[in-house]
Amino acid sequence: MNGTSTPAAVGGIDELRRLLQELPGPDGTATGAARAREPQLTKPPGSLGRLEAIAEWLATWQGRHPPTLDSVQVRVFAGNHGVVAKGVSAYPAEVTAQMVGNFQAGGAAVNQLCRAAGATLDVVALELERPTADFTEAPAMTEGEFIIAFNAGMASVPDGCDLLGVGEMGIGNTTSAAAICHALFGGAAGDWTGPGTGVAGAALDAKAQVVADAVVRHAAARSDGLEVLRRLGGRELAAMAGAITAARLKRVPVLLDGYVATAAAAALQAVSTDALDHALAAHVSAEPAHRGLLERLGKTALLEFSMRLGEASGAALAIPLVRAALACHAGMATFAEAGVTDKD
Amino acid sequence: MNGTSTPAAVGGIDELRRLLQELPGPDGTATGAARAREPQLTKPPGSLGRLEAIAEWLATWQGRHPPTLDSVQVRVFAGNHGVVAKGVSAYPAEVTAQMVGNFQAGGAAVNQLCRAAGATLDVVALELERPTADFTEAPAMTEGEFIIAFNAGMASVPDGCDLLGVGEMGIGNTTSAAAICHALFGGAAGDWTGPGTGVAGAALDAKAQVVADAVVRHAAARSDGLEVLRRLGGRELAAMAGAITAARLKRVPVLLDGYVATAAAAALQAVSTDALDHALAAHVSAEPAHRGLLERLGKTALLEFSMRLGEASGAALAIPLVRAALACHAGMATFAEAGVTDKD
Repeated sequence: MNGTSTPAAVGGIDELRRLLQELPGPDGTATGAARAREPQLTKPPGSLGRLEAIAEWLATWQGRHPPTLDSVQVRVFAGNHGVVAKGVSAYPAEVTAQMVGNFQAGGAAVNQLCRAAGATLDVVALELERPTADFTEAPAMTEGEFIIAFNAGMASVPDGCDLLGVGEMGIGNTTSAAAICHALFGGAAGDWTGPGTGVAGAALDAKAQVVADAVVRHAAARSDGLEVLRRLGGRELAAMAGAITAARLKRVPVLLDGYVATAAAAALQAVSTDALDHALAAHVSAEPAHRGLLERLGKTALLEFSMRLGEASGAALAIPLVRAALACHAGMATFAEAGVTDKD
Repeated sequence: MNGTSTPAAVGGIDELRRLLQELPGPDGTATGAARAREPQLTKPPGSLGRLEAIAEWLATWQGRHPPTLDSVQVRVFAGNHGVVAKGVSAYPAEVTAQMVGNFQAGGAAVNQLCRAAGATLDVVALELERPTADFTEAPAMTEGEFIIAFNAGMASVPDGCDLLGVGEMGIGNTTSAAAICHALFGGAAGDWTGPGTGVAGAALDAKAQVVADAVVRHAAARSDGLEVLRRLGGRELAAMAGAITAARLKRVPVLLDGYVATAAAAALQAVSTDALDHALAAHVSAEPAHRGLLERLGKTALLEFSMRLGEASGAALAIPLVRAALACHAGMATFAEAGVTDKD
């Protein structure tokens, strides 16, 4: 950042590519302050395990110690997909808009989870009436469409945000996620294709074939994460990538939701290997390919609850764990304060 | 309970043994009501995974639908152990009382975690100035001492409690837990012995030898879970068993903390195979034997955070996950309410 202002939007894919090579790194001073406090707290060293690591991660990527969690935000990005014409989902495309209405009315799972976690939920619906192109036939988005969606994601991250949960809603988008992963990581299309909202048997085989066909069509772009995201993604996936990028620029740690959110994130990591260092995987979902995807990204999920809903539900569920980590790190007494005898 | 009143205390081990054979079972009506609501909620069936199972478990063991989480209680039982004379811990025994003071002053990890989870913490210190006997030389407790501690645990569960987290503090008590597990489940003493607060190398080998010696001395009692708990346990372990039992009688679902709490619970399951059906394992700890113990009990932990602190920290950390499950189950809109199209 070095005194330059944070870009609120990018002008095109080339500018974005440059931006991803110049992302701000970890704040070593904040890391050091977190590490210095931890052994003073009234517990055996390391005995809070991952909670200690989370507290350090918060400090490192917020760039301050102690970190804060006053403003915790969850964003759900919604988009529609031309590929649903190929029969890849158990639900009709109209459900995307209906679920956006449900989010806005407060009736969905993520509404309950955000309320329980003290998080603010905002839903960003991206031209639901205008599905992306069927990516078995053409790129899902033009460069212009891609950048508009990416910038919508960037714009959704407010100043002063302390933690961001990122998720999606979009009938057909596990097909998009599978195609992105198959393009980025190879293997067989079936390795990356799962039931999504509930396809099985012959319909699942057909879904894997759609994924295979799409990646064959766009094979020339496989080495370029942003092109993969533009051609095989969807508006909500581009927007999630934008939100994750803006969060990095604004020093906001990120909780990634499930398979689709992680696939969008993977496209960023394909461009810049450290692009997701400020992000934790909130959970490993029941969508079978999510575990392998997290392994490729070097992420260990916070939760394994066999969830496969998307809509940032896993990200929201993990927020209390992050709050707990900070509560211990910031609130515990030291050995000196409590008059407790330290280890022999 | 068939109209009989809930016993507030037991008069002796034989009465307790009978009580454990007559524990109230699951409430099938409440289970049915939870199962009937779940598929109406605006999500693909099963897509909230373990959250759905937790909501059903709450209803089943509270015996009502919808379940409630107005009064969430955490109990930390503290005791001292004669076996610390054998050098099994990295900390001196005085730390038990010091940490009780830290709990009472609000400075420990569990205080922060309970505050974050909206839970009420109470600490029950059990004759800290009077350690149990060194169980390599004699039974840890007389029957009278055991029953007094067990009843203290029973008495700690208040009426109107909706969920109970159970944990402990006691320098030396992972040695006690290891001896209980070795007695109940066999194998080698080393299989059940871990670093606890941080012993390693030759000290860890010596700890395993203490466990082996203790189980040899009390070998005749190995088939009797309550005798194992009396002879190899400690006051805080007996009290945890009492709290878990009282919770069952009062229809309070339980979150078990780590290795020591689970070892105390295992003694109950050795007496009555369904004695822990109302209990979930909050986490699998970094104490290496905990994973195998949970497998023996047929429990899958909610969290795996490499924690090894005890003091109910894992139980408290899991409370927000239970709250999240109930929030979704009780608060989500149905397909009919939200006007969302159900699956094809």
